[in-house]
Formats: sequence, structure tokens, C-alpha cells
Amino acid sequence: MSTTLIRGGTVVSSTGSSLQDVLVDGERIVALLAPGTSVLGDVAAGAAQVIDATGKYVIPGGIDAHTHMELPFGGTFASDTFETGSRAAAWGGTTTIVDFAVQTYGQSVQDQLAVWHEKAAGNCAVDYAFHQIIGDVNDESLKAMDELIGEGVTSFKLFMAYPGVFLSSDGQIVRAMQTAAGNGGLIMMHAENGSAIDVLVQQALARGETDPYYHGVTRPWQTEQEATHRAVMLADITGAPLYVVHVSAKQALARIAEARNAGMNVFGETCPQYLYLSLEEQLGAPGFEGAKWVCSTPLRSRAEGHQDELWKYIRTGDVTTVSTDHCPFCMKDQKELGIGDFSKIPNGIGSVEHRMDLLFQGVKDGKISLEKWVDVCCTTPARMFGLYGPKGVIAPGADADIVVYDPNGHTSISVDTHHMNMDYSAWEGYEIDGHVDVVLSRGTVIKDESGYVGTKGHGRFVKRALSQNLL
Amino acid sequence: MSTTLIRGGTVVSSTGSSLQDVLVDGERIVALLAPGTSVLGDVAAGAAQVIDATGKYVIPGGIDAHTHMELPFGGTFASDTFETGSRAAAWGGTTTIVDFAVQTYGQSVQDQLAVWHEKAAGNCAVDYAFHQIIGDVNDESLKAMDELIGEGVTSFKLFMAYPGVFLSSDGQIVRAMQTAAGNGGLIMMHAENGSAIDVLVQQALARGETDPYYHGVTRPWQTEQEATHRAVMLADITGAPLYVVHVSAKQALARIAEARNAGMNVFGETCPQYLYLSLEEQLGAPGFEGAKWVCSTPLRSRAEGHQDELWKYIRTGDVTTVSTDHCPFCMKDQKELGIGDFSKIPNGIGSVEHRMDLLFQGVKDGKISLEKWVDVCCTTPARMFGLYGPKGVIAPGADADIVVYDPNGHTSISVDTHHMNMDYSAWEGYEIDGHVDVVLSRGTVIKDESGYVGTKGHGRFVKRALSQNLL
Amino acid sequence: MSTTLIRGGTVVSSTGSSLQDVLVDGERIVALLAPGTSVLGDVAAGAAQVIDATGKYVIPGGIDAHTHMELPFGGTFASDTFETGSRAAAWGGTTTIVDFAVQTYGQSVQDQLAVWHEKAAGNCAVDYAFHQIIGDVNDESLKAMDELIGEGVTSFKLFMAYPGVFLSSDGQIVRAMQTAAGNGGLIMMHAENGSAIDVLVQQALARGETDPYYHGVTRPWQTEQEATHRAVMLADITGAPLYVVHVSAKQALARIAEARNAGMNVFGETCPQYLYLSLEEQLGAPGFEGAKWVCSTPLRSRAEGHQDELWKYIRTGDVTTVSTDHCPFCMKDQKELGIGDFSKIPNGIGSVEHRMDLLFQGVKDGKISLEKWVDVCCTTPARMFGLYGPKGVIAPGADADIVVYDPNGHTSISVDTHHMNMDYSAWEGYEIDGHVDVVLSRGTVIKDESGYVGTKGHGRFVKRALSQNLL
Amino acid sequence: MSTTLIRGGTVVSSTGSSLQDVLVDGERIVALLAPGTSVLGDVAAGAAQVIDATGKYVIPGGIDAHTHMELPFGGTFASDTFETGSRAAAWGGTTTIVDFAVQTYGQSVQDQLAVWHEKAAGNCAVDYAFHQIIGDVNDESLKAMDELIGEGVTSFKLFMAYPGVFLSSDGQIVRAMQTAAGNGGLIMMHAENGSAIDVLVQQALARGETDPYYHGVTRPWQTEQEATHRAVMLADITGAPLYVVHVSAKQALARIAEARNAGMNVFGETCPQYLYLSLEEQLGAPGFEGAKWVCSTPLRSRAEGHQDELWKYIRTGDVTTVSTDHCPFCMKDQKELGIGDFSKIPNGIGSVEHRMDLLFQGVKDGKISLEKWVDVCCTTPARMFGLYGPKGVIAPGADADIVVYDPNGHTSISVDTHHMNMDYSAWEGYEIDGHVDVVLSRGTVIKDESGYVGTKGHGRFVKRALSQNLL
Repeated sequence: MSTTLIRGGTVVSSTGSSLQDVLVDGERIVALLAPGTSVLGDVAAGAAQVIDATGKYVIPGGIDAHTHMELPFGGTFASDTFETGSRAAAWGGTTTIVDFAVQTYGQSVQDQLAVWHEKAAGNCAVDYAFHQIIGDVNDESLKAMDELIGEGVTSFKLFMAYPGVFLSSDGQIVRAMQTAAGNGGLIMMHAENGSAIDVLVQQALARGETDPYYHGVTRPWQTEQEATHRAVMLADITGAPLYVVHVSAKQALARIAEARNAGMNVFGETCPQYLYLSLEEQLGAPGFEGAKWVCSTPLRSRAEGHQDELWKYIRTGDVTTVSTDHCPFCMKDQKELGIGDFSKIPNGIGSVEHRMDLLFQGVKDGKISLEKWVDVCCTTPARMFGLYGPKGVIAPGADADIVVYDPNGHTSISVDTHHMNMDYSAWEGYEIDGHVDVVLSRGTVIKDESGYVGTKGHGRFVKRALSQNLL
Repeated sequence: MSTTLIRGGTVVSSTGSSLQDVLVDGERIVALLAPGTSVLGDVAAGAAQVIDATGKYVIPGGIDAHTHMELPFGGTFASDTFETGSRAAAWGGTTTIVDFAVQTYGQSVQDQLAVWHEKAAGNCAVDYAFHQIIGDVNDESLKAMDELIGEGVTSFKLFMAYPGVFLSSDGQIVRAMQTAAGNGGLIMMHAENGSAIDVLVQQALARGETDPYYHGVTRPWQTEQEATHRAVMLADITGAPLYVVHVSAKQALARIAEARNAGMNVFGETCPQYLYLSLEEQLGAPGFEGAKWVCSTPLRSRAEGHQDELWKYIRTGDVTTVSTDHCPFCMKDQKELGIGDFSKIPNGIGSVEHRMDLLFQGVKDGKISLEKWVDVCCTTPARMFGLYGPKGVIAPGADADIVVYDPNGHTSISVDTHHMNMDYSAWEGYEIDGHVDVVLSRGTVIKDESGYVGTKGHGRFVKRALSQNLL
Repeated sequence: MSTTLIRGGTVVSSTGSSLQDVLVDGERIVALLAPGTSVLGDVAAGAAQVIDATGKYVIPGGIDAHTHMELPFGGTFASDTFETGSRAAAWGGTTTIVDFAVQTYGQSVQDQLAVWHEKAAGNCAVDYAFHQIIGDVNDESLKAMDELIGEGVTSFKLFMAYPGVFLSSDGQIVRAMQTAAGNGGLIMMHAENGSAIDVLVQQALARGETDPYYHGVTRPWQTEQEATHRAVMLADITGAPLYVVHVSAKQALARIAEARNAGMNVFGETCPQYLYLSLEEQLGAPGFEGAKWVCSTPLRSRAEGHQDELWKYIRTGDVTTVSTDHCPFCMKDQKELGIGDFSKIPNGIGSVEHRMDLLFQGVKDGKISLEKWVDVCCTTPARMFGLYGPKGVIAPGADADIVVYDPNGHTSISVDTHHMNMDYSAWEGYEIDGHVDVVLSRGTVIKDESGYVGTKGHGRFVKRALSQNLL
Repeated sequence: MSTTLIRGGTVVSSTGSSLQDVLVDGERIVALLAPGTSVLGDVAAGAAQVIDATGKYVIPGGIDAHTHMELPFGGTFASDTFETGSRAAAWGGTTTIVDFAVQTYGQSVQDQLAVWHEKAAGNCAVDYAFHQIIGDVNDESLKAMDELIGEGVTSFKLFMAYPGVFLSSDGQIVRAMQTAAGNGGLIMMHAENGSAIDVLVQQALARGETDPYYHGVTRPWQTEQEATHRAVMLADITGAPLYVVHVSAKQALARIAEARNAGMNVFGETCPQYLYLSLEEQLGAPGFEGAKWVCSTPLRSRAEGHQDELWKYIRTGDVTTVSTDHCPFCMKDQKELGIGDFSKIPNGIGSVEHRMDLLFQGVKDGKISLEKWVDVCCTTPARMFGLYGPKGVIAPGADADIVVYDPNGHTSISVDTHHMNMDYSAWEGYEIDGHVDVVLSRGTVIKDESGYVGTKGHGRFVKRALSQNLL
């Protein structure tokens, strides 16, 4: 018999928390019980496995809606495979990742999606789904967008940055948005003005400003706010829902909040790095050290107060989800490509393992409520990306993707102890006042106090519905 | 044995819906079950009572956070007693009302609260709680505010309108807000500039503009937006959380949305009348007919688009709750007091019976989602006013306040069929594409297809905690 | 023969500057001449008096639209009489002052205006006009407002502060604004929430916070912004033009700018003290020293950046005029009334002598253009208050109120050298990179390099037209 | 003797008006005189020529800062040459035009400027100056921008529309703006998102929507507001002053007003067609008639209220200048190129002759003040484009570019009577309550009641200074 009873814990949802016992049968949650419910007899006695969650939080497994396993970038590949990356996710209480299949100029969307399916299939520790990057908007890729909806890939990412690599012209964006408006898909946008940025980058390099710090300086907040505004206007013209990824500038989020107040289907994502780290402290670290934190959008100035504003916008609901934009590169042989030229540093930070912990620290620090933690890390990502029901909620009938989190535990983050395939940690020295105790993925314990106990290939591809989070 | 199984229905929460069976034991929900859950045996067989909810929605009982039973106003009393009003609430799927105990100049807060306890005790069909109106802010009433927190009355309403009756000066508001900031209470505000309005009213009457329509004309949106802004600024000075009641002007809601974007604990309530009815159509009805819809804040102009904007702000989350401001007066002997002088018409509309239906119609009309319906009518009111846990959610351990709602049923609203003590209906002729089938209050069916089957005095006073909805 | 030729100077207007000779005949300017104009013969030879302005600016005499000579306040009187104050104005290049006649509760407006006429008549060094303070809005004073328009007193000041002294209720403000909307007059507003402030003041004093610094702390920016917003909304209801006096909070000016963008006739005045001085440095001076700078609205925090924003709003045109709110009190026997209780310190700063210099320093410091200096100190005050034509412009036909200003001169400000009747200077130690060389009032030189050469009583009452600055 | 006395008129400036006699000697104004000034003797007697302006306005000659004589566009040329166009300007009271020299891809800026000098030299009825269009931003053209400053061409126009013809990428805009920030030049921007528009245009044509009306539909306000915002952000990054040409969408102007409130050097121009004409009435005229009003930005919807908002923004000062964007094409052989395909209709409307009249009608209609008329048509254009002093003001020393305007005259606009080289009038049937009586250009009467009396080639090239209108 395959039943598991998680007993004595406090189940936390988006709206509140209460003591509940959770009964799992096979891959699904089958019952939530008030502790001491006598009318059903002794449920615990009948359970094959009992997990004692007394004093712990019982929450839906985390959903990281933005990862880039094995992403080809600048002549190298993100250092986590689906195997290593999804395992690290499991360690950190994330039970679903949504990764990006990549189409770029001249490629077939369907072929590229197939490539990504192949990379992931049989390798994942937790369930996974895909967004599709549309790097080359044309008649064929627009047709593919319609097809992908039926294949469970219901969100499409475009770029306003990286001219010559991923950038779509505004005209192409219009066409892709029109397609999404028609088929119910969601447009995700990397909102930075790549054309302006590239000029600033070339000028900086020409002046000999080659350190990682200048990666941030050459992407000023205006380039992010501008692109965000442009995306909102194009969404307004076309009627497409718009999800702006990895927002780091407070002004960009203010623009998103304004669109939301106007009743538009506009959504903002941020990432732990933008909540905690800064231009001055991390990107500005001595020598080449700052390369560890080169990512785009860049870390922003603490003096300008972006970090506090981002936390605020989580509280106000204008940040819809917190994802990681997990895109790890090692210093050796990878980040080092950019010594002497910051523009050659592969862009990315690895955090898939730490998101649930880092955001829980926000609860401890009084920045967000316990409910908001679950909301932006688990429930709303599920709603946003058509996963809700099976995922994102502790409810009878849902997949038993469950995390038992100890609010009195402790987690020290370090390259010495993390499980991502990286030779440094962007979070070295961070101490978290909480701990991921047990993780279940579809009813199977894949991480407990002994460590990772899952299996490669347990994770399955999840076909996603259309967004359940539109106004 | 006292168990009830609600079987086959779709449980709807703030975040989503799924097929779940709900098991009630005594007054509480004890289990939520995935349909067909075999590991617990045949739960249905063991249940004393089975309610078939197939094809129906199963939702938390409605919470109407703004009612005025038996309110003394302008020389008369609101026509519903706690008995008749709470029974009408039950008919309409509302299982908790939060009414207002009234202190005015020269009165003792505690004495007045006692009066209201006496009015309600033993008379209610459903559970009830109290807000406290502080009409006379002074050392004694401020002290009473601290005391009331411990007695489960954790929100305090002030008035910027009605000079000489309820109005607090800005200095008094500051003092009351400081007290709330200190004790964790919530300030509720009637935000209209009473001083300016009274001049406009007197001038209109002097010009012979005595019809009900001029009630609306003499309370222009600026008087509401201004007071709302003033309340927000005073809240900013004092640190008090602020809940603005019965917002009807889009500009006032825009101001609230702005404060919320700034991260302030500012909340807006609206009412069904502001979503559906208008200055032109209802207040402007021929002759004295418009008196039926005299309430303050007033109905707003449809030409100016307030109604659509209010629906929008429900979608965006800037409307926190939809309450009724239920304050019924009969035309005969009551509203008629204002023939020839609109300022003498008792202010109020009765809707406690219809709120769940009217908002569900918004779901049918595509204005809000199903989840939002539950959110603004049930769950967030509970969170806002410290009721969540026992109330506002379908969860093991919660009070079994449950409504089985038929989305394929039908409800016609008319004075001939309603259960409020009114000789007219503000909603005469409204046809609702849904129906309240069954209502449970703490485990007891009080309304089913045979009609009201509850008992006077079943409803108990609920001590409220501090707000669970603050940022 | 009474002609004067001002030769060789650069005439500066609101829009530009150029070399022009100015010919004065009697009290008026009769010609502007391009230097070297031969067709009119040798004008200089015919002039009775030639003033060499080579290398100097020739500008319209300054108009200080906000002074309080001999104002009764808190049991004492502003220390400058019309004689001493207007003479100091002359020293500083101001050739017209607009003072405030004061009506308070129970007084007759006309009687009070007569009192002020009597105070000023025969005593002034420069021309003067009056605004009327309406402290008691009632049928009689509203009637008087209509009458005063015809008597050349076309602006009416109301107070939202000083409950029990000057404060008008919002209802009274509505009535006064309606009257102004009808007769073409201008409403001037002291915009601070006096009711809230008084509570904060009493609480501070009760806590022993009695130093001058707390005068500022108990009037937070929100109390100014709130009242400003309220005044704008009431102006919107009534259609009255609104001029907000002595704005010191950047948020209040932002609200004014917003109203202006919406096309409303809303105007903002600021004063030199708010541009240069701060809560921390001046009000926060050790011991009782801060009393020198107690005025309302108060000096604002430099850390919050109000000063820079006010300069910015001069550049953008959202500050309409810079006046002084000249209201001098000596430290001895006057300011000292508030030792141990800041609320008893007479409110006011004396600057009538220094405004032209202080604002010119803004030109030197690159904060405003030369044209803007003339605009906000001379031309727009004239337009705003119905003085333009005779005043505020260098043009044929205009009164010969002219200042020859030396941009290479120097002025040191000190109690030892100033001409106001004060025993301290709020501007002690300020060094100005410019100098008032010569001042003409209606064609008569009243100040030259030998000093003041005017006569008491030269200044006449000026009947003002309606505002010439409305949209 | 070459003196002219303009006697008895009311001289109007940006700030006010008064009776003044204007004495002209040769090409310049040499004196302004109060009527009846006796100290200078009988000036009239000495004047070679006396123009009686009694009852008329005497204003600075109009400056039309946006014309396109002989512009090559879409395979044809604007139908007015410098000769015919500048003569029409003279008829209409405009004494200076600023035309655009055009550089496009692969061309040399200096060569192109030379071409335009050649077109204009010896042909103009009134003075003229040049802006330089930079269609191809590269190292060479950036260098040329520096050079042109010294040659009196101090403003540079870029395009965000017309991909493949004039469009600059955002990176190119950054570079050009940086250059302007360095050399003091002004960036003028055609702010429409050409990339998005081109897609919408192609889609419309593919749907068979080929009528002129669809020219407007395919350039929705969002495409203008977006580009405006983008330009503002790039200006913020680079520090360049920004002048947005031909703004027609109220939302774009709102964005400009916002930037101005923030203290940025951002300026907006609009044109008479956007103030009077609309998408529905003109562009939507039956058949191909709408082609007469095809211009970009397009005419906007009256239902959306753009026209009223533009007038409002003139009043508030957020519209800096009103120019014509005079770019005439005949219907025959020119506009007709677009029969069956609106995208092939040459873009442009001819109004150079009517601007002063059309804006004066705004005075008559109560939309703007008399002073504002002079301000936006004469004085501020001069300040904005470095012409002030010689141009834009009635002052001793200024060029005698003077218009005597009769506010009681009348002007009927028609193709039958206008002097532009067009076979239709965009303003057919417009009746103006005013009339251009006499026009002087540098002291020479070029238009009087007998008609045009000027000479080809009288007009000279004017070297412009840097902008005198920056904050």
C-alpha cells in the first residue's frame, strides 16, 4: 500500500494556514484532515508511511518558472544539465521547473522543442515543463506557436535585447503578440533595449571600462523601463497578455504596476538576486570577482533603492512570481571568457536550489508574509503558467508535490555544500533561518533528512494549460 | 451522529477550484476528500447526512462585512432587525455579518457596544461580529478602543461626513489612527467631505432642487476623492491601516490604488449598488422614486464610467471586499420623510440577501473570475477582519459555514419574494443566472431547497482577531 | 524737464535680453531705443538726467506679492511698519508690495480694509496694493468680496490652518470660492491641515518637545500636501482660480503641477527661505536659535530634497511667483515669547529686502535663467495679480519702476547692514554675487549708490485689475 | 530716408499688450514709443512711411519652425518650392521658416545641406533657416553635426519611423543624442514606432483596407506614445535636449508634460491640423477624399478627445511651439499615387499660409489667450531654435519682422484664393475672424492690403544660435 500521511504540520496556502494532516495515496493528495478527526477512524494507522511535520510548514512544492538548463550561450553551455539542475531544485524544495526551449534565427521551433524534450526526458528529478523562446518570428514560427498550445507549451518568450541573437523587432513582437492573443498563449518578454545597450557597451569597452561592474553601468534602468513600457504598449495594441521576466529596476516594476492598475493583463517576475544583491556590492566586487553576478537584467544600485522597492512590489501583488532565471556558469573556463571584456562573460546566476530558502528568509526578515511566500513561489506560478490544480496547491486531487519546511531549521549556503554544478556560489555565506526537511514529488519522497533520495527520470514532462491567472 | 458529507461538488477557493467532497462533523469541516478516495473506506456510508452537490459550487459562506441592522438614522431605524436581517443574509448565502455598534457624541463606547450586543444576542440566524463606530473621539473612547481589541472588536469606523452627528475632525482622526496604529486595530473610514457637502446641499435646497436626484449632485466625486486622499495622508502620518468603506467614485478608488502601489496598508470596499446602479437611472428616476436609492456615498454617473472602473478594480485587487452597506428603510413612513427635501431621506439600501447572487452575476457576465467571486465575498473579508481560519475558507478545522451554489439555477429578485423587511426592492426585476441551494452555518443546514430552516439565535457573536490582510 | 535716460544697459524681460536705452518722462517709460538710434536725434542730450547702465541689467522693479507689514500675530505685531518695510523693499529693488488686509472672526471686511489703508497711506516708499484676508466667511464678507473687486482688491486669502483664528471650514471655502468664481477674483490659500497639526503640536509639547525644531516636525509634508490637494478639489468643484501661498513641500508642488497639467487655474508661490534654508540646519539650530526661522509652512528637510525640487519647479514654470511672505519679528520680546513652547513663537521671516538678490544668486548658481529671474520676481507677479501693464514690464507706457542691477557687484547680508526693522537677519552671512545699484519708482530715483533717497509717502495705493495670468 | 512708423497699434508680446508706436529704421526696429511721447518731437513727421495700425495688433513676424519645401517623398516632391512656399508664408504673416535639409542612407550631411542651401538661396520671400535631418547616423554624420553648429544649423532631426528610409535604430539615436549633448545642439524627433506600424500597415492592406482612413487606423496612439517615451528615456540617458515634432496624440503629450514636470529639457510641437481636424471627419471622408489629410503622425479621433487636449496643453505651456509641418502635395499625380493603397499616398498637409490665422481663431474661440498666440507662433519658436533677439520679439534692435493683424478683419480659406502651390486646400471653407493686413520682413513691407509686394530673394539664410529655451 502506497499511502503516506504527513501529520501534525501547518498547511500554508496563499490565503492562510492551519493545522492539517495530509493524506497521500499514490501520486496524489487524497485527503486533508483536521487533526484528531475521529469519524474516519485512525488514518495514521492505515498509512504505509507517516511523516511527522509537527512544528513544520507543509506547503505545495515550489515552482521555478524560469530556468535555463544546458543553455547554449556565448560559445558555452549553462553548467547544469537537466539532471544536475533538477536535482538541485529538489534539494531546495522546488518540485517543478519550467525551462526554455530555444529557437533562434533560421531554426524550426518544433525541431528545437524536440531537442529540448530530448535533453530533459529521462533525466529529471522533478517534473518539468517548457516555455518556448521564439528567436525568429516568421510565418512558420507563428504557426508553430499555435501548435505548441496543444502540446502543453503555452508561453512564448521574446527578446528586446541581444540584437543579432534573439532580438525581435517591434514589428515581429506585434506579430507574435497577435498570435498569442488569438491562441490564448502568454507572451514572456526580456525587456531591455538591446540596441541602445550595445552602443553603450561598445563605448565603454572602447574607453577601457572592461570590468564586470560596467556590465551593470551599460544597462541603465532607463533601458529596462523603456523596453518594459514598449512591451506594454505593444500588448495594448494587440491584446496579448504580457509577462515581463526578471525585472530588476524599480521603475520597470512601477510601469508594470501602472499597467495592472489600468486592468491590463501585465505581469512581472523578479528573482532572488534582484531582491538581495546589488550593483555596488556584487557586480562592483574587486577585480574579476564581479563576474559571478553578471546577468541580464543586471543587479541594480542599492543606493537607488531598487531592492526594497522590489520587496514592496511583492507585497502589493505587482510582482506575480519569483523565479530564479537559473542559468549557471562556472568561473573557470566559462565566466573567465570575459576577462578583459565584460561583454564576453556568459550571463547568468545559479539559484534554483536556494529560491525557497531565500524567499523564506524574507518572511523571517518581515519583508513578506508567510502566505505571500507560498503565493509567489508556488501557487501563483502555477496559476500563471497553467499548472494549477495538479500543481501549486495542497488540495485533494492535486499531485502530491509537497515540501515540509522547518521554520526553526537552518541552512548555510556555500559552494562547498550546494548541489548545483557550479564552482562558486552567488550566495556564498548566506545564512537562512529555515530548512527544507522533506520533499515529495508526486507522492514519492525525493529528499529527506538523509539527503537526496530521488531518482533520475522520476520527473515527467507536464503539459500546461493556458494561464489561469488572467484578469 | 452528526456528520454531513457534501459530495460531488466543485470546491472553489480564492486561487482555484476542483472536485472535492467535504466532510463535516459537528460544527466544523473535518476533511476534504478527493472523490473516490478509497483508502478511507466509504465515507458517504458513514455520514448521517449526504448533500449532493454534483454540478454545483461549494464555497465558504459569504461574509458581509458592512451591515447596519436596526440603525438609528434621521429619527427612524433601519427596518431590518438582527433577526430579520440575518435571516435574509442566510437566504442569500451569507453566513457571517459584521455590523456596526454606534457611539456618537457624548456616549460611552463600551455602553454602546453593550447595547448592540443586546440587540443581536439570541436573535441571529447566522454568526455575527461587530465593528465599533467612534463618533466622539476623546480620551475615554480612545481608551475603549484599546479595550475592544481584547473583546474581539478590532476595527473602528470614523466619519468625515455628517457634521454634528458622526463627523470627526482631522485632529480627532489623527488621534484615533494613532491609537489603532498602537493596538493593531483597523480604521474604517466614511470618506466624504461633509463640510463641503452640507453647503452644496443647503444651496441646492434653497434653489428648490429637492428631488432625490440632487442627493447625488450635491455629493460630487471630488468630495469623495478628497476625503479619501485626506484619510490616506493622515494614515501615512500615523501609521494606521485604513479601510475605506463603500467607495463609489472611480477617482477615489484610483487614489486607493495609488496608495496600495506605494505599499501602504490602504484598502477599499465597494458595494453591489455601485457596481450596477447609477445616478442617472436610479437616483434620477421620476418623482420621488429615486429615494429608494438614496445612500451615501451616492450612486455615480454611468456616463462617467464609474461602474465599469469599479469592476475593473475588483479584478486588479484594489477593491479588497464587496460588502452591502445593508441599511434598509421602507418607502412608507421612512424614505417618505424626505419628500420635498432630499436631505431628510434616510440613507441606505438593503442588499444583504442579494450580494452573493449579484456578484456571481458578475462571473456570468465575464466581469470577474469565479475565484475572484469567492475572494471578495468570502475569503478576503475574513482575512481583512480577523475572521480567517474559522471563517472564509473551506478547510479542515474551519467552521462548516458552507454554501452550495448552483451555477445553472436562477434567482429573480423582487419585493414579492425577498426576505428583508422592506416594502420595496432596490433590485426589483434583477434576474440572476445562479442560485443559492443550500447554506450551512457551523454545520447546521439553515437554508435548503425547502427554504429557510434555521433558527433564531443559532448565530453567535464571533470575537475577531486583528486583521490578517495587512502588508 | 523731468526726463531720465537709462543708457547702455541690458534690458531683461521674461523672454530675453538686449541692449536698450530706456527713456523716462515723468512717471512713465516713454521710449525704448536701440543704442545709437540716430533718427531721433541725440536723446541723451535732451535728457535731464542720464543713468549709465553700461554692463548692468535694467529690469522691471520687483513685485513682492506677499508681505505682512505690522501684522498682528500672537499678541504682538510684525516689526516692520509700512514705512520701514517698504523702505527696505526699495533698498532691495522691490518697487511694489502687495500686503494683506486682515479680517478675522466677527470683523467687517470693509472696516478692516479701511484700517489697512490707513496704516499704509502716506507711509510707503514704494507703491503698494492689498489682498484681503477673509477670516470669517459669511454672507456679509462674501458680499464685501464682490465690492472689493471694484476697489482694486481682487484677491482673497483663506486659511486651512490656525483653527480658532483664521481657519475656514471646507464649507466656508466652498462659499468663498464660489464667490470668486463669480466675480473674477482669485482665491489665495494657506494650505496646511490646521486641525491635524494642532493635535501633533499639543502632543509634542506634552512630550516636552518644546524647541523650535519641533515646529517643523509637527507640520509634516503630508499636512501641506493634503491641504493643497483639498484646495484643488474644492477649486475644481467651484471653478475658482486658486493660488497656493508659500509652498515649501515638494509633494505639495507636485500636486499643483498635476493640477496645472490638467489645465486648471492653479498656481504655486514659494519664498526664498524654502529655496535656501532647511529644517535640519536652521530650524534645528542649537537652543532657541531656530526661532529665527519659525514660519508656516515650515522649512523642510534638505535630506528629503525639497529645496532642489522647488528650484526645479521654478524652472518648469509650476512655481508662478517667488514672494517673501515678509513677516518680521525681532528675537527680543517677540520670538522670545516662545521660549519653552515653540507654538508661541510668532511665525515669520523677514526677507523683503533680499528677494531680488537671493533669486539673482540662483541665476549665478545656474539654478534658473536670467529671464526666469525677471519672470518670477517681476513680470508674472504683475500678471498674476492684475498689475501688468503699469507694472512688471519695461515697455513704453509702463510706470517707470526700474531697477539697475549690477551682475558684477556684491552684496553682503547682515543685521548690521540691512534696513528692515529686525534685530537679526535670517540671512546672516549670505553673500550675493550681484547688487541693486539704482531703483526708480514711477520715474523717481529712490535708491542709488548713495543709498536710499526716496521719501515716505511717495508710494501710492495701486488698484489692481483681475488676474491676467489665468489659462 | 528709410524709416517707417507703425502707429496706433497694440503691440502684443508673450506677456501682455499695450499701445505702442514702432519705429523702424532700415532693417531693424529702433524704437518703441508710448503714443504721444512728446519729448522726442514728432516722430511721425520724420518717418518716410507711416502705417496706421489703429485698432490692430502689431506682433512679431511668425516663425514656422517646421516646413518641407520641395521635399522628395515617395517618388515625388512637395509641391511648394522655396519660392512659392515662402511667398505663401509671407501672405500668412510668417516671416521666418525653418526648413529641413535631408540626409538619408549613404549620403553626406554636408553635401546635402549644400543642396538645400542651393534650393533656397535667392528664391525666398522671407528669411529662412535649416534644421538638418540625419537619416544615416555614423561617424561621419556625427562629425558633421559638430560642424553644422558653427554654420548656424543647430538642430538635428531623427526618425523612429520609416524603416529603410529615415529610421535610426535606438543605438544610433543614442549616438546622435550624445553628440548633441556635447555640442549644445537640439535633437528633434519624429516619434512613431515605424517597425510596429509597418506590420499593421501590411496587414491592413492584406485585408483589403486600402482607403486613406486606414492610414490613421494603422498608426494607433500607442505607437506615438511609445516612441515618445522611448525618445524621452534615451534623452535621459544621454542628456540631450529633445524636441518632439508634430505631436498629435494626447497620450504622447501627456508623456512630454510628465518629462517636463520632472525638469527635463523635453519639448512638444503640434500643428494646426491636429488642433482642428480629425480621423473621423477628414481621414474618414468618403472615397479617396481622405488622402488630402494623410500625414504622419496622423489625425486623431475626435471621440477620444485629442484635439481638446492639445489645445489644453498649449494653454499649460507643454506645447512649446505650433508649426505647420508644411509638406504640400497635390491630389493630381501626387496624392493619387496612393489610390488603392494608402501607404503610397505622399504624407503631408500644406498650411504654411494659414498658421497665424488658424491659431488666432483659437484666441477668438476662447481656447488660448492673445499672448499665448504670439508666444507659440512667434516668440517661443525663436527662443527654441536660437533665433530670438533678431527674431521673435518686438524690441529695439530686433529685425523689423512685423505683422499688423486685424482682429476685426476676416479671412476665408480656399484653394481658389490661397497662394500655396496646391490643387486643394486642407482647410477649404474655414472662416477666420481676423486678417493679416501688413507684413514687414526686415523693414520691408512684403505684403499689404494690395497683396504680396515682396521680392523673390529678399529672404536670407539665418544662422541660428543654440537654443535659448532650455531649462
